Amino acid sequence: MARGLCQIMGREISKGNFNTNIGQQMTPRGTLQLPWSSINSVRTMAVLPWPFSFQPRDFSLPNSSWGSDMRRLYEHYNSQCEVETDDGEKKWGVWRRLPSYNRSLKYTTGGVYLSKIIQSKARLFTRNIREQGAAFEYVVFVNKQEQKCVCVFQAGHLLEGPPGHVHGGAIATMIDTVTGTHATYLSGPVMTANLNINYRSPIPLGSTVLLTCSLDKKEGRKTFVSCQVTNTDSSKLHTEATGLFLSITMGHLLGG
Amino acid sequence: MARGLCQIMGREISKGNFNTNIGQQMTPRGTLQLPWSSINSVRTMAVLPWPFSFQPRDFSLPNSSWGSDMRRLYEHYNSQCEVETDDGEKKWGVWRRLPSYNRSLKYTTGGVYLSKIIQSKARLFTRNIREQGAAFEYVVFVNKQEQKCVCVFQAGHLLEGPPGHVHGGAIATMIDTVTGTHATYLSGPVMTANLNINYRSPIPLGSTVLLTCSLDKKEGRKTFVSCQVTNTDSSKLHTEATGLFLSITMGHLLGG
Repeated sequence: MARGLCQIMGREISKGNFNTNIGQQMTPRGTLQLPWSSINSVRTMAVLPWPFSFQPRDFSLPNSSWGSDMRRLYEHYNSQCEVETDDGEKKWGVWRRLPSYNRSLKYTTGGVYLSKIIQSKARLFTRNIREQGAAFEYVVFVNKQEQKCVCVFQAGHLLEGPPGHVHGGAIATMIDTVTGTHATYLSGPVMTANLNINYRSPIPLGSTVLLTCSLDKKEGRKTFVSCQVTNTDSSKLHTEATGLFLSITMGHLLGG
Repeated sequence: MARGLCQIMGREISKGNFNTNIGQQMTPRGTLQLPWSSINSVRTMAVLPWPFSFQPRDFSLPNSSWGSDMRRLYEHYNSQCEVETDDGEKKWGVWRRLPSYNRSLKYTTGGVYLSKIIQSKARLFTRNIREQGAAFEYVVFVNKQEQKCVCVFQAGHLLEGPPGHVHGGAIATMIDTVTGTHATYLSGPVMTANLNINYRSPIPLGSTVLLTCSLDKKEGRKTFVSCQVTNTDSSKLHTEATGLFLSITMGHLLGG
């Protein structure tokens, strides 16, 4: 596996001596969702001294629960995160892997009072189970050039809905997460306003699928994204959806 | 708390000396979803001898994690599950509480091959965490007379999406679960075909909300259900959605 710049970026964001709650989920939707313009400021925050120091787990990195499909697709996109120029220099490729953590910004509760217990124990819904392979195993890659986003998703045994198949709510959760990530990448911080999901064919429990998102249009504060969930060679459509996202200010996010 | 017939029904379905995997999730959507007509047959199954004997946990019963709103609304609906007639007899009320377990029908994988490990460890997505109060705490009541269904839902700290608020995917999961339960109650076994969800106002983590579902129409195999997610006194609308469900045969369910 190439030691891509994507991974390096992940490490720089997450290395010790900073509040590990910062930079783990910058917007109201899904996994780590950083618009390109905000990456530098997060990297600056990362070098600030902080009393807490530990290495948070990046859930988007491969682990022993990943099956062959999951690993193969990860390698496919990850190898395009960094390219070598003719003179041997390394530079960003067209894809970037987004690191993913299980905490959101501490003390940033959108103006809502939460008990200290809830606040300290809160975990991102899609990363709330530590047992590898049991629930949502996924990694998101974004492509700036094509304004496209893909997610490789392996559905664990704790996501059952219909017997032997993935729960419709777990599929909706991944769609919200990935379309929200893509909208954030394109437009900065957003909130989901609408999800319209058509379930075409159930997804067997334990299988790996691909979520592919693209921009439909932007109109003022609105960003329209569409998403298809297919099997790994894209020959079978499981689910398709559209998402409408509204841009919000950092004030919304920080409790204003 | 009244010892309602709803609870008695739950115990009869779940008591020992029968395969506890039977009757825990009769259809492809959400929690225990029994159309009225099938309850008698399930109760018959419950008295059959079976080599496995243990008491499965009914997740819809109150536990120490439930806050005052959750308990109050549970009591409100549960007290209407059983009424006393003038001559002191007890009979069903207009509401019924649906018990809820965390396993689906064993060996019923919709014709899909699953490894023994995945099959034996599979758990219903909304009941996959045993820690009380950590994730989805909910109870569903159905009203035959009004063709209505309500769900009291307390969102635990592991369901975070936007900082301090419930993940849009967790809300979608509850909507899928409750609209699917209602469609099953009205039409027998169904699969979700479409969910269209409008997110109006974020739900603070740890709070209790009410999901109210009603039938829009039935057309052949199609059942259209709408759903509103509000605060507990219904004064604030958090989310509204429609669901389209397609009737399936027991053959689909049993792997045909």
